[in-house]
Amino acid sequence: MTDEPEVSFGTSPQAYRHWRLAVDGPVATLTLDIDEAGGIVPGYELKMNSYDLGVDIELYDATQRLRFEHPGVRAVVVTSGKDKNFCAGANIRMLAQSSHPWKVNFCKFTNETRNGIEDATANSGQTWIAAVNGTAAGGGYELALACETILLIDDRSSAVSLPEVPLLGVLPGTGGLTRVIDKRRVRKDRADVFATRPEGIQGKQAVEWKLVDEAVPKRVWADTVAERAAQAAAASSRPDGTGITLKALEPDGYRYRHVKAELDRERGLVEITVLGPEGGVPESLERVHELGDEFWPLAMTRELDDLILRLRANELELGTWIIRTRGQVEDALAFERVIEQHSKDDWLVNEIRHYFKRVLKRLDVTSRSLIALIEPGSCFAGALLELALACDRQYMLDGTIEGDEQGDEAQIMLSASNFGTFPMSNGLSRLESRFYGDEDHVAKLRQETDRRIEAREAVELGLVTDAPDDIDWEDEIRIMLEERASLSPDALTGMEANHRFVGPETMESRIFSRLTAWQNWIFVRPNASGEEGALRRYGTGRKAEFDRKRV
Amino acid sequence: MTDEPEVSFGTSPQAYRHWRLAVDGPVATLTLDIDEAGGIVPGYELKMNSYDLGVDIELYDATQRLRFEHPGVRAVVVTSGKDKNFCAGANIRMLAQSSHPWKVNFCKFTNETRNGIEDATANSGQTWIAAVNGTAAGGGYELALACETILLIDDRSSAVSLPEVPLLGVLPGTGGLTRVIDKRRVRKDRADVFATRPEGIQGKQAVEWKLVDEAVPKRVWADTVAERAAQAAAASSRPDGTGITLKALEPDGYRYRHVKAELDRERGLVEITVLGPEGGVPESLERVHELGDEFWPLAMTRELDDLILRLRANELELGTWIIRTRGQVEDALAFERVIEQHSKDDWLVNEIRHYFKRVLKRLDVTSRSLIALIEPGSCFAGALLELALACDRQYMLDGTIEGDEQGDEAQIMLSASNFGTFPMSNGLSRLESRFYGDEDHVAKLRQETDRRIEAREAVELGLVTDAPDDIDWEDEIRIMLEERASLSPDALTGMEANHRFVGPETMESRIFSRLTAWQNWIFVRPNASGEEGALRRYGTGRKAEFDRKRV
Repeated sequence: MTDEPEVSFGTSPQAYRHWRLAVDGPVATLTLDIDEAGGIVPGYELKMNSYDLGVDIELYDATQRLRFEHPGVRAVVVTSGKDKNFCAGANIRMLAQSSHPWKVNFCKFTNETRNGIEDATANSGQTWIAAVNGTAAGGGYELALACETILLIDDRSSAVSLPEVPLLGVLPGTGGLTRVIDKRRVRKDRADVFATRPEGIQGKQAVEWKLVDEAVPKRVWADTVAERAAQAAAASSRPDGTGITLKALEPDGYRYRHVKAELDRERGLVEITVLGPEGGVPESLERVHELGDEFWPLAMTRELDDLILRLRANELELGTWIIRTRGQVEDALAFERVIEQHSKDDWLVNEIRHYFKRVLKRLDVTSRSLIALIEPGSCFAGALLELALACDRQYMLDGTIEGDEQGDEAQIMLSASNFGTFPMSNGLSRLESRFYGDEDHVAKLRQETDRRIEAREAVELGLVTDAPDDIDWEDEIRIMLEERASLSPDALTGMEANHRFVGPETMESRIFSRLTAWQNWIFVRPNASGEEGALRRYGTGRKAEFDRKRV
Repeated sequence: MTDEPEVSFGTSPQAYRHWRLAVDGPVATLTLDIDEAGGIVPGYELKMNSYDLGVDIELYDATQRLRFEHPGVRAVVVTSGKDKNFCAGANIRMLAQSSHPWKVNFCKFTNETRNGIEDATANSGQTWIAAVNGTAAGGGYELALACETILLIDDRSSAVSLPEVPLLGVLPGTGGLTRVIDKRRVRKDRADVFATRPEGIQGKQAVEWKLVDEAVPKRVWADTVAERAAQAAAASSRPDGTGITLKALEPDGYRYRHVKAELDRERGLVEITVLGPEGGVPESLERVHELGDEFWPLAMTRELDDLILRLRANELELGTWIIRTRGQVEDALAFERVIEQHSKDDWLVNEIRHYFKRVLKRLDVTSRSLIALIEPGSCFAGALLELALACDRQYMLDGTIEGDEQGDEAQIMLSASNFGTFPMSNGLSRLESRFYGDEDHVAKLRQETDRRIEAREAVELGLVTDAPDDIDWEDEIRIMLEERASLSPDALTGMEANHRFVGPETMESRIFSRLTAWQNWIFVRPNASGEEGALRRYGTGRKAEFDRKRV
């Protein structure tokens, strides 16, 4: 279980081993044709179009490129390159041999990618259609569930199924149970029958139970898929445009151009600094497009995204992330005004907005303690202030840094974008969450936008946790970090996962709360992962032996 | 870990070892004064007013008696009989020595009792006030959180705290994290500081952070508590009335008067039968009061409640509960009409309604597969139909029983009470959950009330999962039960906990989903329950050794 490799998330369509991306006018087709020998970890073969983290890293890359490089695409068809087999879901030998952290992290990333597919349908005018041309089992059906429309070939053998409970003793962990009832609105008793029937459900019954939208006879399959894709594309309001190119990121270790991270293994933490924009704001939208992936908000977001993913996958023992920014408050806001002004009418600016939103959501579900340190020279303003608000705590230095009494004091700035531009998965802005139920205070904060707020005032407005002065700063932060590092990593994960989400839940937040938390519990129970557990015994010809106690 | 005793839930104020209940006009005072030697399981002492399941069984009994035996009570003050010590929460040695199922079941029951306290405040005009006259730690503070108002004595030593994360490496498992942010609306960064500070927060700061409502100086403590209780009582709209007596239930094993259960250890299941009312409907409200705890709806509800609690605590390996009813459909509905007509103006009828609601909610969070079998001679009508709707599946026999071709066919009946009288913890009726998002169908069902619906029609209306005919019935049910019994108990628990709750979440449902599921995960992790885990090492003088990986 110990030879899990260092994971990198960079790839490109030319390098895909498992997917083929073809763009034909407004319709893209993404074909899953998994290379059995292409597992990201040794020890298993990706048979039956089953996937592992490596396959999903390519899928994530495709979702991003479709949005940024192919603005003309208005419908995306996901289908399989294998005969009679759409996708068998997560590879079971991979799950059986994986460590608990690897399984949990894998599920989190795959969940985020599927949520991203729904985000593309909802916010980019790119409607995803699952063309299920063979059996879709487990994670294969869950991939289809993330699409807006599910077409199932009616060939008397292809079925959709969620066989995890009966075959593996775990849950369909990529949103399956939740999407079946919340999104597809399948009755709970039928959902129960479905999720305990390993062979799944075919054809007309799958339509009747709302598990798929259409059962399509084989002879009209290709035409029907093309027609549905054309219809979805025609209904899209996505504006025209020319794509930009997402060039490979080339970090030096964990140091990117706008985002730098220093690992401190001794103290068990990572110090992350996000640099504000350098140089002037592009004078026009044309210039924004010309800059493409060099445009600071996009470049910074991509780097931050990559950093979060790499740290989560590779640095499990660094339990606290400190988040700082550096730059001019006004510069950060000026850039963000471009976003505010054009996200409604320009496809690229819209994409950047939603991408930054998704990266913030990744932070929200990251199982690390997040601490914002707001110091002189920082630029927590508007969109960047969301980074601080996503943190579990915010500390702001009151005064100037010792020895630099002439310098500026630390400042933060609210902007319009703190009031709904980047909602959390529960649908609330981070300020609405912070002041849950206190609409008056949120309204008051709306009056405080676009001006510098210093430490004492930030405390009074409830925007930061504490504001030690320069004499206490270093000690207070050091002690706080030492205390944090002494606590149970599991208890912190559970505590943070509860505190970060107040009030309402949505389908998306429910996937990370009710579903994921139960799955994590099941994963560590002997009935799944023990020597005699269902996950370990699958495919050995020996039946699992269960402790029959109900808990 | 194996000598956990058979648990019984019957008690009465005369038998309490840990609580004193005193009623003075409209104000009741419930004083926690725990008998250290009174643990329900050997092996620990209940020091510092810390509790175990036995203490909570008495608390639950008190909440029930206050509602049924003391209708004149309009405010309930919870306080401590120990000096400087309100309550130290769940006993830690008890937690450390308990099996995983025991811990989980204990947390579930304590959660239900605290939800019941909030239900009394919301629906019975009995407002609970926590008079925190000493330190309230962990579960002690969580008990206070369940009250409408929290008064904290300001004596320079008494604090409220949630020390579970820093001291024990587990979560405050009885709603603490959720109520702090959702109910008390404490900012998440402050909640984070609070839940990682073992010494807690005192006096004015506790008020400022919204952790308590008032910090009351010692010299005016008694007067202030009395005043707040009198104010709450005066504001209550609870109607006057004379209490009834809840006599001890005297089951023969698991056979009560109106509810009978047969255990089938070989097949791993329990067959529960709820008997409909015998004899006529009481001709008047006076007669209902005269019957008191003999009035069928109340008698049946009490028996069912006791049965659920005992089976959950004592029969862990019986993973499937079959639920049947027997009686006349019309009789059941006639009784229920009494409830419908008078629950708004009669305190007793109102209590019965909310009690049946709470027992149904217990079923919703019961970690057993629930299967309703609807056969000829059953009376799944109105309120009793909710029992079937709470189940994971509903099977209805189409036709008559073999050999009794002259008999009646199985029938169900909808009534007004299926449309919101007994909401689930997510605020939806079970029909709204079943047909989530399909308001048209729910509206159509409203037109189908108060008439007999036979099997084929029940299938068409989506009210049952399947309706085998008399020839197939026995085999189909047998095979279904065998299949169920072969599945992983853990996977079933997780699956059912997801399927049973669709759509919105409330504070109450979030406690059972986000909070409980995470807690269950943490409980089984070595960082809490391993030899070197925080829960096991607490009080030994040795620090816990953590696997520092963040998952």
